[in-house]
Order: sequence, then C-alpha cells, then structure tokens
Amino acid sequence: MPRYMDVHSGFKGVTKEQLAEAHKQDQAVEGAEGVHFTKAWADPKSGKAFCLSEGPSQEAVLRVHERAGHPTTEIYEVSIDVE
Amino acid sequence: MPRYMDVHSGFKGVTKEQLAEAHKQDQAVEGAEGVHFTKAWADPKSGKAFCLSEGPSQEAVLRVHERAGHPTTEIYEVSIDVE
Repeated sequence: MPRYMDVHSGFKGVTKEQLAEAHKQDQAVEGAEGVHFTKAWADPKSGKAFCLSEGPSQEAVLRVHERAGHPTTEIYEVSIDVE
Repeated sequence: MPRYMDVHSGFKGVTKEQLAEAHKQDQAVEGAEGVHFTKAWADPKSGKAFCLSEGPSQEAVLRVHERAGHPTTEIYEVSIDVE
C-alpha cells in the first residue's frame, strides 16, 4: 500500500490534545477510503503539521482530511524510507 | 531532547540505496553535534525528502546536513506528535 506524507499549515499554537483530536477525526472517517493515518507531528510555533498515512491514492488521503475538517493540498508519495 | 522535521528538495529519482547512503552520511557526522537522525522518507517523483531527528537545536541539525553534503534551510521543531 503506498505511503504518503502530507503537510498542513495553520496549526499555530496547537496543543497535544488538539492534534490528537484532529488525528482521531481523520481516523474516524478514513475507513471508507481505505486509508490509514499512522502518525502526525506538529510545530505549534510555525503552525506546520505533517501526517504519515497509507492508502490507495493521494486523492483518497486528501478526501479523508477534507471530510475531517482540515484539508490540505500538499502531499507526497514517500515510496522510500530508511532508518 | 527536541525533535525536528526537516524538508529537502532535489531528490528527484533518488533510489532507496542513495537515500540510505545520504542517511548514513548524516549519521556518520551527527555525533559531534549531539544530533541523531532517526528516520528519512523520500518521494523520488517530486524530489522531496523529510528527515526526523533529535538534537540540541535546529542549527545543530542543519550543520550536520551541511557537513554531510545535503544542506537545507527548512526545518521545524515538531514538539508534538500523535499516533
């Protein structure tokens, strides 16, 4: 299953509780699209957030974010990872 | 220890072996700065890459990337994460 990293702006001042709530909203609606959000990171200073997901397509991932109320248009298929 | 996500461009066409080599180059010089690169993802189509690290400061992380030969200026302190 392809993996994606998407990027959000506008999370300035976000708390851990708020990020957890946003992530739960994604996970509540992701099933219908065959998507799974695995992890999210945020920088409350700049307002940037990054979400890692698996799903059938970029469009499916973005639809989940849109339905959950925090749309973005910036997404990358991260087909390679190392650690 | 603060955690950071940094963003690179210019990795168009990168292979898993090349990303692993770049990541190893970071890890070979990170110790002097008290930095540790934990994970990297890349999208060979767009050339975007994302690196997750821990370290004492953004500047320390960027110095490691610069010494390893793949500098960037885009970095965020991701003080919050959820899964």
